[in-house]
Amino acid sequence: MQRIIWTAVAAFALSLAIGPFIVKWLRKMKMGGKEYDLGPQSHLAKQGTPIMGGIIFFGTMVVLPLIMHAPGYTWRFVPETVVCILGFGAIGFTDDYIKIKLKRHEGLSPKQKLLPQIALSIVLAVWSYHTAGSRFIVPFSGAEWDLGLLYIPVMAFILVAVVNSANLLDGCDGLLAGCSILDFAAFIPILAVLNLDGGDNLMLTAAVSAGALMAFLCFNTYPAKVFMGDSGSFAIGGSIAAIAMCSGLSLILPIICLAMMLSSLSDIIQISYFKITHGKRIFRMAPLQHHFELSGMPETQVVNMYRIATAILCLMTVAGFLK
Amino acid sequence: MQRIIWTAVAAFALSLAIGPFIVKWLRKMKMGGKEYDLGPQSHLAKQGTPIMGGIIFFGTMVVLPLIMHAPGYTWRFVPETVVCILGFGAIGFTDDYIKIKLKRHEGLSPKQKLLPQIALSIVLAVWSYHTAGSRFIVPFSGAEWDLGLLYIPVMAFILVAVVNSANLLDGCDGLLAGCSILDFAAFIPILAVLNLDGGDNLMLTAAVSAGALMAFLCFNTYPAKVFMGDSGSFAIGGSIAAIAMCSGLSLILPIICLAMMLSSLSDIIQISYFKITHGKRIFRMAPLQHHFELSGMPETQVVNMYRIATAILCLMTVAGFLK
Repeated sequence: MQRIIWTAVAAFALSLAIGPFIVKWLRKMKMGGKEYDLGPQSHLAKQGTPIMGGIIFFGTMVVLPLIMHAPGYTWRFVPETVVCILGFGAIGFTDDYIKIKLKRHEGLSPKQKLLPQIALSIVLAVWSYHTAGSRFIVPFSGAEWDLGLLYIPVMAFILVAVVNSANLLDGCDGLLAGCSILDFAAFIPILAVLNLDGGDNLMLTAAVSAGALMAFLCFNTYPAKVFMGDSGSFAIGGSIAAIAMCSGLSLILPIICLAMMLSSLSDIIQISYFKITHGKRIFRMAPLQHHFELSGMPETQVVNMYRIATAILCLMTVAGFLK
Repeated sequence: MQRIIWTAVAAFALSLAIGPFIVKWLRKMKMGGKEYDLGPQSHLAKQGTPIMGGIIFFGTMVVLPLIMHAPGYTWRFVPETVVCILGFGAIGFTDDYIKIKLKRHEGLSPKQKLLPQIALSIVLAVWSYHTAGSRFIVPFSGAEWDLGLLYIPVMAFILVAVVNSANLLDGCDGLLAGCSILDFAAFIPILAVLNLDGGDNLMLTAAVSAGALMAFLCFNTYPAKVFMGDSGSFAIGGSIAAIAMCSGLSLILPIICLAMMLSSLSDIIQISYFKITHGKRIFRMAPLQHHFELSGMPETQVVNMYRIATAILCLMTVAGFLK
């Protein structure tokens, strides 16, 4: 456990050290994003803030678990997590890069983003079916749930859902980074209690992700100097999804990642309702976090509310796994 | 450990439930503080924000550890912690009350605040000498350091220092609350590893304090709806000092409470230097957090920097106690 904590501290130090150079470089390359037309009015002040800041933690998240791997210890789950983070992060990176370089406001089209995500998710789900097995741990019950071959489509769906939900939660300064630090932190005691074969490697990935994101927060706290962009949000989603996939802990995601899930759900509800009613809206704006902002809550307080709620949900989930 | 987490959640729920009523009541009673003349200019916008919001968590911090005490379990350390939090909190409350009711800008005079603090600290130090013993745990070494009778003046000094340092760190939205949640959270795994007789009761106090402060943050995040006032900062200082005193963990305070210590030290250095040089200043403003603000860092980023630094220091301290 000592090694896990020191790894988090190392990830923090590394990302904090490279952060200022990356911010300076992104600014020099004019990698500023146009504030999304569909965001709240108050966000227009953010125009010109560089996107693609996710590379501050993306590299650390992929490389450091390999470096800090204890000599002689099993490599179980390491390839899957690395491919998952790297793969989804690369899709996000491509999107950011196109947005900036080709000055195409929208980056990849929804289909161009979704198809490689689905392909990667199916590959990962099949891989995990053979290495981690087809069981889900049912939280708060001690039971396990064997899905058999059904595991593959279900797990692929979860991977796509988590990555896109993380992407949708991004949009307020320090929101996705803050909430996901808590998610990663929650995985560590749960994995310690479960004591799975290869669980140490997943704890290492969680610790690196949390530490690197703590450094990123130093650049992303309101008023943000840099946004993570899709490079960041996809890598975060990939890391959370990879840990859940390998450990069989996917069923805790609707609890600890409730914030992300609500962003997705509110988006789906808003669009469906709009289509059905030919133009009516349920939320002032979707995803949900912008609804709160447009209801008059300052961005900093929305972010705090999400973080505190996530912290409480994580605490309760951890308590459910302790004896 | 499950009971500890659920207690934190209960403290959060209780404080969150009473919070809106207290904020409304403080506003109705016109318990708004005049922004301190000596604070940064940018803080003038905060004028009229109610102070004394610390009562949102002060009551919970004192009462809930008594209610959640496990039946049949030892009451060791419970009276000391309750007296410490209640005593220091009461001194802070008196100060806030005088500020508001008598419209005396300064509240109690420094001497009127310090004398009861010193008296209370000596009583607590003597009490703790007889119940907890005269030993300090030396962090990262496994050694213990027996001070004998010298324990009493040293411990009394530590109590006064912690409470006043907590008071000095208060002054930016979410700063003291955010940092001290992390301090309380750090105590819990350390106490779990030490496995002291009565350690469970200290963990309970730490959990209640952290949970109640998480609720307070929902009202105190930038732009704050309420300030904790001295009622709050003295209660927080009292709770941290009580846990450290009873557990013998006082020597970790300069690490996990570095933010507070820097506030005190910068204040002392600034005043001494000013006196020696007849009018020169080292910091743009003391305590240190205002120096960063006047150097051009937004308040929200100063708060984030302090929190992240505290989190890393807490992680390293916890790692030092793990096997």
